[in-house]
Amino acid sequence: MKNSAILLISCPDRKGLVAGIGEFLYKRNANVLHADQHQDSETGLFLMRVEWDLSEFELATEDFETEFSPLAHDLGMDWKLRLSSIRQRVGIFVSHYDHCLADLLYRQRSGELNCEFPLIISNHETARELAEFYQIPFHFIPVKDNKLEAEKRQLALLQENKIDLIVLARYMQILSSHFVDRYPQRIINVHHSFLPAFSGARPYHRAFEKGVKLIGATSHYVTPELDEGPIIEQDVIRISHRDQLNDLIQKGRDLEKIVLSRAVRWHIEHRILTYSRKTVVFD
Amino acid sequence: MKNSAILLISCPDRKGLVAGIGEFLYKRNANVLHADQHQDSETGLFLMRVEWDLSEFELATEDFETEFSPLAHDLGMDWKLRLSSIRQRVGIFVSHYDHCLADLLYRQRSGELNCEFPLIISNHETARELAEFYQIPFHFIPVKDNKLEAEKRQLALLQENKIDLIVLARYMQILSSHFVDRYPQRIINVHHSFLPAFSGARPYHRAFEKGVKLIGATSHYVTPELDEGPIIEQDVIRISHRDQLNDLIQKGRDLEKIVLSRAVRWHIEHRILTYSRKTVVFD
Amino acid sequence: MKNSAILLISCPDRKGLVAGIGEFLYKRNANVLHADQHQDSETGLFLMRVEWDLSEFELATEDFETEFSPLAHDLGMDWKLRLSSIRQRVGIFVSHYDHCLADLLYRQRSGELNCEFPLIISNHETARELAEFYQIPFHFIPVKDNKLEAEKRQLALLQENKIDLIVLARYMQILSSHFVDRYPQRIINVHHSFLPAFSGARPYHRAFEKGVKLIGATSHYVTPELDEGPIIEQDVIRISHRDQLNDLIQKGRDLEKIVLSRAVRWHIEHRILTYSRKTVVFD
Amino acid sequence: MKNSAILLISCPDRKGLVAGIGEFLYKRNANVLHADQHQDSETGLFLMRVEWDLSEFELATEDFETEFSPLAHDLGMDWKLRLSSIRQRVGIFVSHYDHCLADLLYRQRSGELNCEFPLIISNHETARELAEFYQIPFHFIPVKDNKLEAEKRQLALLQENKIDLIVLARYMQILSSHFVDRYPQRIINVHHSFLPAFSGARPYHRAFEKGVKLIGATSHYVTPELDEGPIIEQDVIRISHRDQLNDLIQKGRDLEKIVLSRAVRWHIEHRILTYSRKTVVFD
Repeated sequence: MKNSAILLISCPDRKGLVAGIGEFLYKRNANVLHADQHQDSETGLFLMRVEWDLSEFELATEDFETEFSPLAHDLGMDWKLRLSSIRQRVGIFVSHYDHCLADLLYRQRSGELNCEFPLIISNHETARELAEFYQIPFHFIPVKDNKLEAEKRQLALLQENKIDLIVLARYMQILSSHFVDRYPQRIINVHHSFLPAFSGARPYHRAFEKGVKLIGATSHYVTPELDEGPIIEQDVIRISHRDQLNDLIQKGRDLEKIVLSRAVRWHIEHRILTYSRKTVVFD
Repeated sequence: MKNSAILLISCPDRKGLVAGIGEFLYKRNANVLHADQHQDSETGLFLMRVEWDLSEFELATEDFETEFSPLAHDLGMDWKLRLSSIRQRVGIFVSHYDHCLADLLYRQRSGELNCEFPLIISNHETARELAEFYQIPFHFIPVKDNKLEAEKRQLALLQENKIDLIVLARYMQILSSHFVDRYPQRIINVHHSFLPAFSGARPYHRAFEKGVKLIGATSHYVTPELDEGPIIEQDVIRISHRDQLNDLIQKGRDLEKIVLSRAVRWHIEHRILTYSRKTVVFD
Repeated sequence: MKNSAILLISCPDRKGLVAGIGEFLYKRNANVLHADQHQDSETGLFLMRVEWDLSEFELATEDFETEFSPLAHDLGMDWKLRLSSIRQRVGIFVSHYDHCLADLLYRQRSGELNCEFPLIISNHETARELAEFYQIPFHFIPVKDNKLEAEKRQLALLQENKIDLIVLARYMQILSSHFVDRYPQRIINVHHSFLPAFSGARPYHRAFEKGVKLIGATSHYVTPELDEGPIIEQDVIRISHRDQLNDLIQKGRDLEKIVLSRAVRWHIEHRILTYSRKTVVFD
Repeated sequence: MKNSAILLISCPDRKGLVAGIGEFLYKRNANVLHADQHQDSETGLFLMRVEWDLSEFELATEDFETEFSPLAHDLGMDWKLRLSSIRQRVGIFVSHYDHCLADLLYRQRSGELNCEFPLIISNHETARELAEFYQIPFHFIPVKDNKLEAEKRQLALLQENKIDLIVLARYMQILSSHFVDRYPQRIINVHHSFLPAFSGARPYHRAFEKGVKLIGATSHYVTPELDEGPIIEQDVIRISHRDQLNDLIQKGRDLEKIVLSRAVRWHIEHRILTYSRKTVVFD
């Protein structure tokens, strides 16, 4: 089990940033495991992720802020510190189609996703059996004309369970702005098209009608504007005229599983930074 | 050099189509080189391409229509016969960026594209030198406020040169409906995005702003509605936050060359059928 | 539920094959759902798959052989008839890694794989729980110095359960020639490399050492020569120097699942023909 | 035109490397444009590329070594400094197939490859015309029983023209160890297979016989062992049973062009480091 700290930084680009941060960590005997940075020439932003082993680090986590703040202030940094030992608590929302859910649960059990799944919320009963097999509490909350009421119950459950990240694993209800605003950049959705193409309803049907030669899937952070949040990952697969609508849906399922699980992994490993409605993934 | 005939058929699906066509050809001693068909379950259409060697075929091309018409009529066929010995005459339109042009010319010279290029038309002088190297007549027709006039000159050149297919190899002018209607399904364009995403102007800029994780290119037949014609081929390549706008443009060029040259090859080999604003490619 | 017949044909290429088969089916009122053929120019072979709806077909299955044999004999055909209503009985072998097993079981339950799984055989206990969740009999047969004995028990179980196809879903034991010869072209294995590169043991380790830029996976029929049987499907994924050995193993798992499940689906839908130690997949 | 310096470092991994290098550059007012590093856990190596703008840098290039040496010595660094203003001089070797050559020449002319091509050497006359179009001196050096003699002439030309990098753009002769040893990690070859599969002669033929479902191409540094040098880039494309040998060759050409041109670009931009017979590409 890795015992590391991850520092995520975003600030105006200027000389000496890497040197300053590097020196700060080196003086406290950090053993750097991973460091990556990005300079965005359009916005003049500097984005960085640095991860170091805590075993020989000579600064207690509780004192980090006090010691790092002066440097951070001088350089105008927006920063956060995360510990790999604190496993993210992820709540999964699912509707009828449970392939992404099954995929996430399997990956977590096999060690690929280092997080906890304290609850599954669904507007269908379909996934209950699967949830039980993996011994995860399953909450059936139907959504019809009662969206407000349903979201209230959902939010209560999320709070009770101290959920850090919500994953919409083919959850087919649109969340209200009110809900979304409570979890900024902490809700990940998978959309079954190569966004921005075919945003909105029935993307496979529309891809089939349009006659595209590749279909795609996209994982992204949820914002109040439908299918418009920062894209985290995308992938595509080739189709041909021999593929009927059902073949698109079937082939697409493999894409959805892959782009969603990658996004979840990168998020819980604190590898994603966002700016200008885009993401940087330090993988 | 292949001496073959290609029959392209489109008709309502019904029993006995393959048997009927197969028997017709077999009785006249056709040696079938390639046969492929597609049944579209939505529209109930049957689409077929069959190619046979003419060396032992016992029916003269000029008599084909007379003998085939009764069967075609009985089965409600829309059909056309093409001969591989008649090389398609392809006119290329290009503007400033000449990478697709250079690619097409090289492929033709190396034998990959079995067609003739009787002319290149451009609204810039950039490509003249390249045209001369390949000994292809180059026509500089500037387009500013004189589109009508320019198109008139273009159309005259196309007619004079008996052009079968027009290829817009990064030609950055929009053709009028009047022009497009003269060459239905005989104009191929390459658009530098994964359509229907980023149709219209400056697709790489918009892809960059949007933060997509893959960029694409699309070749399609031109219809009067901009970027809306039947898609022939698409491809994508992965990008990351490390790629700046110029990297997108550079990586995209390789996609553009590949999707355009495939479309041209399939067209001149009579491998494409269209229906419901989609294409079937019998490759 | 589709009620169709599938005819798979392999014979020396000659004129009139398609016409002859087409006419035979048409005269008996077959509604052809899918037809595809391949002519191999090297060997002079003709390979065909044709599938038709049985609902209006005017020939009983039990009489098919009698009526079809004269034509088949005239044309020198090697042929077999399969019915979609007869679900293939597939036995899965697995060792410690159960991601391919979990994937196959999920796909079958969700309707993507139209087959039965009457048994799972393993030399480990790891997968028992998963098997029980899907209510499939699980047989633990350890293999150490007792391979002969173990195979005897395995073969007995396969026979008892009338297994049509054996799938080695990351089964890490090498089967004896004696075993393999009992199920010619009826054992599918997944190898975790892009064969023929890295055949044999520890392919990810060797790929990592070699510094390849893509890793792959291959599904193939098992023959007595290790990793040398006809390849059914392959896929690859890009890696970089940032990927350590564990990342290769993790990324490779997704490939393994996809190439194995495709191979199984194509096999049980009777879409694969083999010749010259290669496969043709009529998808 | 970029006026930057690139520092490439390889040394045993230890704490404080990034801090030390960062501070060195910051104190001399470097504006860092790109920095990337890699820690190889197997070998304990640290590899880094850092590029900075020279316009405000307060250390003259000729004094760099003197000032940097003490730090480099303390940290046990293997290092080199390169200037983007010094365009690499690249000599191209080609035989009969000239698609890679045409591709490289076009990319250089269009600004994608920032290098010079002072000469083309070939054992055929095929490419002379193309060389003349791009106004590059073409040297016809036939190779039959006179390899020693031919290599002598080649080496003389390379030396005369101060060639930094040799690119074998489908040059079908095997270079002697003597020759290769003169240009360690300065000869790039493209092999038309996904190495290590199908190393040696006639890879497309062997891929076709084997029935692989994807074909590939590989660019790599040349070492005395044939097709065994560090891999720089690889790519693949899907094929099917419909593809005959000629289709493989044709499809493969696009791969060859792409993997070779990427390798050349990365090399001339000083983005490649090698260790343990592998490459790290800081792109």
